[in-house]
This record gives sequence, C-alpha cells and structure tokens, in this order.
Amino acid sequence: MIIVLRQGHPVAVAQVTQELEEHGYQVLPVFGVEKTIVCAVGGDEHKNVDFLEQLRAHEFVEDVLLITRPYKIVSRESQPERSVIDIGGVKVGGNEVVMMAGPCTVESEEQVTQTAEVVARAGASILRGGAYKPSTSPYSFQGMGVPGLKILRQAADRFGMKVVTEVMDVRKVELVAQYADILQIGARNMQNYDLLKEVGQSRTPVLLKRGMTARYEELLLAAEYVASGGNQAIMLCERGLRTFETATRNMLDIGAVPMLQSLSHLPVIIDPSQGTGKRDLVAALSRAAIAAGADGLIIEVHPNPDHAIKDGPQSMTFPQFEDMMPGLKRVAEAVGRSMRMKSAKA
Amino acid sequence: MIIVLRQGHPVAVAQVTQELEEHGYQVLPVFGVEKTIVCAVGGDEHKNVDFLEQLRAHEFVEDVLLITRPYKIVSRESQPERSVIDIGGVKVGGNEVVMMAGPCTVESEEQVTQTAEVVARAGASILRGGAYKPSTSPYSFQGMGVPGLKILRQAADRFGMKVVTEVMDVRKVELVAQYADILQIGARNMQNYDLLKEVGQSRTPVLLKRGMTARYEELLLAAEYVASGGNQAIMLCERGLRTFETATRNMLDIGAVPMLQSLSHLPVIIDPSQGTGKRDLVAALSRAAIAAGADGLIIEVHPNPDHAIKDGPQSMTFPQFEDMMPGLKRVAEAVGRSMRMKSAKA
Amino acid sequence: MIIVLRQGHPVAVAQVTQELEEHGYQVLPVFGVEKTIVCAVGGDEHKNVDFLEQLRAHEFVEDVLLITRPYKIVSRESQPERSVIDIGGVKVGGNEVVMMAGPCTVESEEQVTQTAEVVARAGASILRGGAYKPSTSPYSFQGMGVPGLKILRQAADRFGMKVVTEVMDVRKVELVAQYADILQIGARNMQNYDLLKEVGQSRTPVLLKRGMTARYEELLLAAEYVASGGNQAIMLCERGLRTFETATRNMLDIGAVPMLQSLSHLPVIIDPSQGTGKRDLVAALSRAAIAAGADGLIIEVHPNPDHAIKDGPQSMTFPQFEDMMPGLKRVAEAVGRSMRMKSAKA
Amino acid sequence: MIIVLRQGHPVAVAQVTQELEEHGYQVLPVFGVEKTIVCAVGGDEHKNVDFLEQLRAHEFVEDVLLITRPYKIVSRESQPERSVIDIGGVKVGGNEVVMMAGPCTVESEEQVTQTAEVVARAGASILRGGAYKPSTSPYSFQGMGVPGLKILRQAADRFGMKVVTEVMDVRKVELVAQYADILQIGARNMQNYDLLKEVGQSRTPVLLKRGMTARYEELLLAAEYVASGGNQAIMLCERGLRTFETATRNMLDIGAVPMLQSLSHLPVIIDPSQGTGKRDLVAALSRAAIAAGADGLIIEVHPNPDHAIKDGPQSMTFPQFEDMMPGLKRVAEAVGRSMRMKSAKA
Repeated sequence: MIIVLRQGHPVAVAQVTQELEEHGYQVLPVFGVEKTIVCAVGGDEHKNVDFLEQLRAHEFVEDVLLITRPYKIVSRESQPERSVIDIGGVKVGGNEVVMMAGPCTVESEEQVTQTAEVVARAGASILRGGAYKPSTSPYSFQGMGVPGLKILRQAADRFGMKVVTEVMDVRKVELVAQYADILQIGARNMQNYDLLKEVGQSRTPVLLKRGMTARYEELLLAAEYVASGGNQAIMLCERGLRTFETATRNMLDIGAVPMLQSLSHLPVIIDPSQGTGKRDLVAALSRAAIAAGADGLIIEVHPNPDHAIKDGPQSMTFPQFEDMMPGLKRVAEAVGRSMRMKSAKA
Repeated sequence: MIIVLRQGHPVAVAQVTQELEEHGYQVLPVFGVEKTIVCAVGGDEHKNVDFLEQLRAHEFVEDVLLITRPYKIVSRESQPERSVIDIGGVKVGGNEVVMMAGPCTVESEEQVTQTAEVVARAGASILRGGAYKPSTSPYSFQGMGVPGLKILRQAADRFGMKVVTEVMDVRKVELVAQYADILQIGARNMQNYDLLKEVGQSRTPVLLKRGMTARYEELLLAAEYVASGGNQAIMLCERGLRTFETATRNMLDIGAVPMLQSLSHLPVIIDPSQGTGKRDLVAALSRAAIAAGADGLIIEVHPNPDHAIKDGPQSMTFPQFEDMMPGLKRVAEAVGRSMRMKSAKA
Repeated sequence: MIIVLRQGHPVAVAQVTQELEEHGYQVLPVFGVEKTIVCAVGGDEHKNVDFLEQLRAHEFVEDVLLITRPYKIVSRESQPERSVIDIGGVKVGGNEVVMMAGPCTVESEEQVTQTAEVVARAGASILRGGAYKPSTSPYSFQGMGVPGLKILRQAADRFGMKVVTEVMDVRKVELVAQYADILQIGARNMQNYDLLKEVGQSRTPVLLKRGMTARYEELLLAAEYVASGGNQAIMLCERGLRTFETATRNMLDIGAVPMLQSLSHLPVIIDPSQGTGKRDLVAALSRAAIAAGADGLIIEVHPNPDHAIKDGPQSMTFPQFEDMMPGLKRVAEAVGRSMRMKSAKA
Repeated sequence: MIIVLRQGHPVAVAQVTQELEEHGYQVLPVFGVEKTIVCAVGGDEHKNVDFLEQLRAHEFVEDVLLITRPYKIVSRESQPERSVIDIGGVKVGGNEVVMMAGPCTVESEEQVTQTAEVVARAGASILRGGAYKPSTSPYSFQGMGVPGLKILRQAADRFGMKVVTEVMDVRKVELVAQYADILQIGARNMQNYDLLKEVGQSRTPVLLKRGMTARYEELLLAAEYVASGGNQAIMLCERGLRTFETATRNMLDIGAVPMLQSLSHLPVIIDPSQGTGKRDLVAALSRAAIAAGADGLIIEVHPNPDHAIKDGPQSMTFPQFEDMMPGLKRVAEAVGRSMRMKSAKA
C-alpha cells in the first residue's frame, strides 16, 4: 500500500506511520521534492478494508494506492488451478463447454417440457427458467412461484437435465434449493448482501450474474461474500452491460471471459440473450464467447417467442437453437474444447 | 402506442390489429411506401406491460413505441400538485428545504449524540446514520444492528429530530420501522423488488435512493412498486451516478431535481456526500441542489472523519457543516424557499 | 415519422399537418383519449434532418419518433449485398479474414522492417503504423511525420504488404495518401467533420474508427459523411469503448460485428489491442472477433514492447503474434472463413 | 511515481532503477513479502509521458502509479490565484458572473440582431452563435460561414457585446479570429490536436468545451495543448455528458465547477442548454451552476425556437430568458458574486 501525503503537514508522516504499524504493516517513507509518500508492506489488506478508508479520510492524505486485491478466496492467486464445479455429474469449468438453455419465464408445464426436450436433444445439459421474476414494473408478471419450480424439476428430470433458476428473496433460498441444482443470483441483486450471505450458507451451487454496471472487482467481491459464507461452488456470469448505446438492450463484454479467468479460478458463463436483447445476435455472440474461452453459455429459448410473457425479442425459436448448436461445437473444437451433442447434425 | 412493421409480411397488420383490439385498443393502420405503422390508442398501457413485450417479439414487428409513461401513481399526471410528506411534523416537499445530517455509520452513542447536537443546532431536523451497512467487501464492518438503531432513536429524541436509516433485509423492515421515522432504501437495493414490496406494506415513509446507473423511469417504477403496495409517502433521492470519470467517486446529477419534479409529484432529496465522495465539494453542490429546487439534502457529518469507520473522505467535520449552513440558507431564500436555523449566524 | 402532440393545443394538428405537407409528407392524425398523434409517411427523412429538429422544437410537440434510418448510402437497405473493398488486390469484406498488424508508432526503419517481415510471414497482408500520433499530452511524442510514412511504404513494398496509417490534419490528407493504401481516421476524429469531408474527396480507401462513446448510428453517419463526398471504400472499425470499468483501458464491443453488418454493407474490422489495452487479452478477443464474423483485425506488434514509445502494454511480441495466428485460422475455418498463412505452423 | 513489480523477476529492480535514474529520478525500492515496489521521486513527470508508458510495458511491471498531475501550465499548483481573462473589457473569472447568450446557429441578420438586442438588455455581455456547425448528419445545415461571422460581429458591436463562435477547421482559425473575440472549440473537437495547436498559436481567447465523455484530466490536457502553444487565455466549458440516461440529451455535471476550479486556475463556464437539451430545465440548472461557483453561462436563445434550424428544443424564447435573469442575479448575490443587469426588472 502506498499513502501519498499532501504538502505542508509536518506531523503527517509520524502519524500515518504509527497507524500503519498498529495494523501490522512495515513502513518506509520516501521524501520527494513535491510530495512525500509512505510505503507500507506486510499487512493483510483484505482484512483491513475499513482501515484503508480511514487512512483516506485524513486531511493530509491525498491518496491511498492499493497494490493487492481486496478479494482472497475467489482469487487466482489463492488457487492457481481453475475450479471445476460438479452439478450432479455435469462439470462446469472443465474441458466441456456447458450449455444452459430454456425459457426466460416458466409459463406452463407444456411450454417447459417442450423446450427441455428440444434443448436437451440439441446438447444442453442444464435447464434454465424463472419461477420468480425481477420485473421493472410492478404491473408485470412476477412468476409462477412454487408450481413453476415443480414444472422445472419434472421437465429436467425427464430429459436428464439439471435446473438453474433465480432466487430473489432471502426467505426463499431454502425453498428454491429444494427444486434447483443451481441458485441464480440476478444482476439486480449482485449487491444484495443479505441474499449473498444466505446463499453462502447453502450447499447448492450458485450462478452469480454481474450487475449491469459492476466492475470486475465488485463482481469478485460479491463472489467473495458467497465464498466466505462457506459456499465456494460459484459460477460467474457476464450478461451484458448498460452503456450509452440505445440500439441494443445491453452491451456484452466478451473480454470479461479472459479477464475474469485471469483474476479468479471460478468458471465464467456468458449470457448472450440478456447480453444483447436481440435473438438475431445470439448465435454470433455465442460463437465469440466460446472462442474467447467461456466455460458455458446460458440461452433463452421459447416454443413461441411471439407469445412469451417476457423477453420474447431475445428468445430463440427451437429451429434457431438447433441450427446454432453445430456451429458452436465447431468453434469449441477449434479452441480445444468439447461440447456434448447427442444427435449428429452438422 | 405505435407499432412499426417490417416489410414483406402481408398478414402482419391483421394479426397485430386483432391482438391490440383484444387488449382494448382502438387501432388505425397507416400504409407508407417503405413501412407500415399501426397506431393504437385507448388501452391502459401501464397495465399491459407484458403484452407490449409480446408485441415486440413478433418477427414482423420492428419496433413498439410508447407514448405514455409506464408508472402511474407516482406520476405528475396522476397528481398535478406536489406531495408534502409529514414526518411527525417535519414537512418534506413544502416550502422549507429540509436538512438530514449525521454520520455514515453508527459507531457509538457518543459519536451519534455529539453529531446530532451539532447538526440540530445548525438547522438539521432529521438525523441520518447507518445501523445496517451495505459494504462492497465481506470483510468490512456490517453495522451495529439493533444497538445502533437505539442509539439513533435516543439521540434524535434528545435533540428534537427525526431518524432516517437504511433497511436492507426484508426480514428486518418491521424491526427497523420500530426505531426509524423514515426507511431508507439504498442505491444497491433500488431494484430489490421483494424489499420494495415489503416497505410498500409499511406505514413508515420511505427515502428511495436512485441506483447508480438507474434511469429516471426506473427510479419512478421502483417508487411505483412501493406506492402500489399502499405506501405513498416516498421521497426520491439522487445520490450520484457511476460514469467514466475516475477523479470523483460519483457524478451528482443535479438535473435530476427539475426533471424528477416534472415527471412526479414526489419530493426530491439530494445526497451530495455520496454524490461526490469528496467533502470539499459538498458545500458547492449543496448550494447548487437548493438553487435547482431540491426539497432537502442528506449530508454525512462526523466528529472526527479521519477515524470514521466508513466514508471518512466524504464526511464533513462539525465546523465545515456549521460554516456551510448560512450560505445554504441564503441560496434557499434567493429561490424563494426557507430553511430552519435556530442560531442566527449569517 | 410519428409526431406525438401535447394536450391542450387545439391548433397543433392543423399546423403540424401543414408543415409536413410542405415537406412532401402524407399525413394522418390519430385522436386518442390522452394524446393525439400525427403519422407522416412518404417524405425523404434523411434529407430533412433539420426539419425534424424544428418539429421537435414546437411547444405542443412532445416527441418526434423516426421509423427510418438517418443514413442512406452506407445502409444495408440501400445495398443488400456486402461490400468488398479491394486494396490493391487485398480484398476486405470477402471470405478471407484480413490481418492488419504492425507497431503503434513508427520509431525507426529497423523497427518497422523487422515487424513487417515477421507479421507478413505469419499471415498479415496490411502493415499498420502511426507517423502522426494523437497524444493526450502535448509533451508526448507526436510522430515522425513524412520520414515515418516513407519507412512504412518501403517496408510494406519489400514484404508485399499494403499500408494503413492515420491522418489527423485536413491539410495532410493528400500527403498521407501518397504513401498509404488506407487512410485511418482515429476514434478521436470520428466527428471531425472537415476531416471526414476531406477523405470523402480522396480516392484512397478509409478505415473509420468508432469514437470511444459513439453509438452505431453516429459511426454510420460519420461513414455517410465520407460516402456522400464520393468515397465509398470505407471499413468500419470497432476499437473498444470507454465505460465505468477501470481494470482495462477500453471495453471491446464484439457485438458491434453482427450489429454493424446488419445495419450496413460495409466491412467491419476489430482492433483488440486498443480495445483492451492489455496484450494478454488480445489473442482471446481476436478469436472472439473472428468467431463473431469480423472481416479483419488490426493488431499492434512491436519487436520490443518494453521500449515502445507508445502503447507498449498492448503491443504483442513477435513470438506472441506468431503463436496466435494458427489458432485464429482454426476459428476462421470453423466459421467458414479463410485466412492466408504462408508458413504452415499449426 | 511508484512502480509495482510482479513476483519472480530477480533483475527487475536493477533494470527499473537504471532506467529511472537515466531519466533523472531518485529511486528507492521497497521489498515486501508479496510484492516489491519501487518509489521514484525528483523527475519531471509531465515531460516524461512516453517514458512512463514504456515502464508500463515491461513484462515484470504490474502497474505504474503517478502521484503528480500530467498537466502543468493550466494547473492550480503552477498558479494558485484564479485567472481572469479580459475579453476587450469583459472580465471572465472575476467577481462577475458573465452571461453569453444567442442563437445556436446564425440564420439571418434579423434573427441575430433581434436576439442580441434582447439578451444584451437582459444582461448578457457576450453574443454566441454558430457560423460553422458540427452536424451529426452530412445532410444537415452546415452553417452560413463568413456571412454568418459578419452578422455576428455587426450585431455584437451594435449592442456593445463581444462574440464567441466555433471554429472547427484548422484552415479557418485566422479567418474566424478576424470576426470573433473568443474562439470556441466544440466538444467533438476537444481532442482534435491539430486544431488545439492552431488556436494555441492564436492571440484570441479560447472557450474549450469538454468532450462528451472526457475526464477532467483529459480536458485539462487539451487545455495544456493550447496553453503550451502560447495562448493561455482559456475558458473551460462543461456542456453535459453522455450517459445511460435517455430522457435528457446530456447529463450536466455541475460538480465540474468546484472540481475544475480546484485543479486549475482557469475560469469555468457552464452550458445548460446543450447540457440538458431541454429548455424547461435551463433556468434551474443555470441557478445551480451559479450557486456552485461558475464564472459564466452560455445559453441558447432564439426569437422563434419552433423554427430554429438547429437545437430548437433547447433554445429559450425571449420571454423565458428575460424572466430567468433576475433569479440568476439573486442566486449570484447569495453566493457573493455580481451580475450586470441594465434594466431593473425583478
């Protein structure tokens, strides 16, 4: 850690030195012509987050520059080899690129069953679908709740799939975990710390979506909340960012794949449906995500997007999904990864 | 509502017309050389949010353009006169510009009591302070909890003030409401819909902070969640936005004051402490907020910012706060507003 | 075009109708309960840009909604088949993915010649390098000028390559065109309209970089400036966007590839060096760009990035570039594209 | 300057030390458990911009942290007292808040003369108006050119005003300076370095607008380009930023006023017309700007905004401008500043 001091405060060096030493740092001041800086090493910075804030608050402190990362358990430094998360036999983070697919929202048993059958046959191993939906408007459909969870579970079991579904309410974590194999934390809840702590207490793996303007560090600190609660089966998910562009719903940050993989050992999943908001862009960005090294994709598919309750414009039809898959497999193989595809359409 | 159709779909007009009429709209198609558009009027769009999404999902629909607002209860159209919210005698939204001040985080009885005394004497009528703190790092201080709430309540009562404090957890809304006069929803929880619904059930007024990259419409839809639950005593709070700038923590959107006041009848509060992250900018932006028409300010003050557990760099010292107040009063009077100041320093 | 009128202006419909008819539109008003809207079709909107602005300025006009695009020559509608630009035999926009590579800045004959030799052998057909450099600081190196242009030309000729280099000054367009096969317009100059007009007069192809927070529409309007001047040999280049993220220099928008290709017939080039600012991310994002359908890449390579005058952190070494190329070719082939690679390393 | 080294490079300290010493720095390494850092003081960092880049490019360098500012002439450190710029007797940066007003675009002699008369009488001392217009579309009006400059000059002279007008083309700087008292550099040209150098050669004062996503540091480096060319009569102008918000054209950063004034001695002007894009917000944000300490405002006024060629929606009518002025004066006086107002309407 480097503390940059303002000019004209003769006691600043002594005071900062004392505070740093009390927190376990070794201290070395460097006196320049214009500025004096204090270098501190040896302390445990990620345990001293609040102390750093206090240093910044001194009138005579111009800046505090960190040279270590504020997260620890999820960092690549703490575990150089990549994590592989086992979802009842489906391994996320290994050589296989894992496909998660299904409708945005659970609407009916028929809708989910039909979709599960198609996406499973095309190569998806995890069924997605929302039973509790975060809706911008209070007048929007809020999800089917428990009946929706049951529909997902039954459809997944029938076609040999696993279930990923969102949990929004701390009071429902246990309930959702009874039906789901993966608990999804949505982008809007990435910094809902009580929810992060609650899923940290769970033994069910977590898919943690990046907030729509969250920095990588903030996403990793959110993961650290979950991990420090005891649950280290975490998948990071990039789902598009809010920017100044208005032609697309979000801007998908494909660079998050290599960047997060260099900072953390956790698997990285890409959501190109939410990431663009346009079904016509999903195939191209799915190929790009795999080429960049993504460990999995999560994609919205609907039997009849024109009548989807939510997110119709970004949901693929069955033929679109089926047509896309062989191309994804070719790209995966070009970068040395595998994809499971039962039928041999290519 | 306007539906723009793509070329080359002969049945599109008939199908869209039928769907619109089923939802209560009157429909008029306009056939142009390049495009056909369908105009629909008379339906209740804010009740048809999901239907609009479905229209957008049609392959032959290029765009759906709304011409009414998606929120209703909180809109200026539904109530042309400005709302005044009565917090046990302190009126927010009336002629008086209301000052809320206090420490970022409750640390001790002494800290809060000293601060309450100073800010009350200088003209603040509402005491702020966090007993539950949203911290980016899991290793940061998370707040004192109930003892912190008690400290706030006692200090406020002693100096004739009201209490505003944050609630983060749906399970604690009732608990916090036992001690607080205003429930604060933080920026990170602006789209935590279960929490919004829960405070919507409460009878305690709500201070709703804008998410750090939330659009005005999203803030107003979040307010609509609270209002549609039955609690219409809502204050909107702009607290700075995340942008590309790195020199300040956030960028305060002073334009939110006139803009939100034109869209909604709810009072608008400005948080210049969080809004900039730098105590040296707080006075200038407080003056600006009042000049732009803000109904109140919420400001971080600490007896000793250098040793504040959180947000020291943006917390004012006692003398800074006392020095700032007369200047704010002068600006308030210049724009026809009043401020309460017991002591006559000017 | 749709004009949404405010309530309470009885003469609004008549006045707007008259103005629209004077500009060649057919007009149809739709009277709703809450709002009246006026639909206008048949006019030439991209020639009426200023008139649209005037409509918006009416007190009784709430909004003007366009349903056609403001650019024409460069739009996909005006030319459904993709453009192929012939740079002296190198075809950009065809089946081959074209590699442009070279140093950020021309520093010496030796540096450029060595780099050209390596990148040409590895499969690049266009040599990049800056002789005029846009530098944020006036105290930074501003480029070698004409001697730099000569070095580029000689090195390219020696290894059978073409030259792309930036022109910043309207007074130097002719001069740079004497040495270059492609005139690069940098991101900072995307809306330097005098420069766009000047290269529009030239017969030399143009590589137009997207401004760092330019919307797709603005990039295409900048291309329209060049095209409407007579020069339609334009390549669009995405080079990373400025966002709130601080861990990388820019955020590369891979989605720009399919999006721009759907809006325009012009080829799309990706710059992953500038797009991330980190050489360790370049290979992954190059693969992603090709998988998404990019027509070419432009990459910074330096014999000794540690001593590069500019952009060392994002410049690849020779071995890094050579190691990356076979992987790019595999991805290109997986998506049905070709890449030229003389040597058969894979 | 602090150089943070990666682990596992034994010769890194020696090499970095040597390079730093060659550039005039004194060097002190600090060996920590996890990292080694090298502190360097005494060199002239703003003259060593390129060298810093080279340090960053070393494989063994993780980061280079600057502790001094990259601009010098325009910094507050180099000149603690605020600059006052004398525009033929109108002093910008002194006690008086200076009003610049006029149409967006020069359309006719009558339009400019009428506007000049009204704004001069209401208290404006500088006439604004564009003879060369940066238009997003090539099909938009591009300005009247020299006849427009003549109209501005005559109208200003007639009512005792000065002229500010934009120059976009390096070849026209001298020409525009023959008619203008202040050369405006538009937001799109803030990093058009050839243009900055050209106005740096001029003796005419410069109004430098901030780019729509430029950081404070970049604006000040652009000003440093002008200043280092010899022209130090520079006014910084904040004109609204591009963000994710779509309800307003731009988001006005009022915090730029105290922030830029703390970083630089140059006067700061606010443009609330461009800054919001909505004339109904201009008065509130003008008051806010003055309350925050702005040295001047630049405001768009038009005799008939409904028929303005450009920017009608953000142009005030004559009565709006006249009604606003007394309120601005009251706020100015509340913060200890003066405004000239010939007529005594209040």
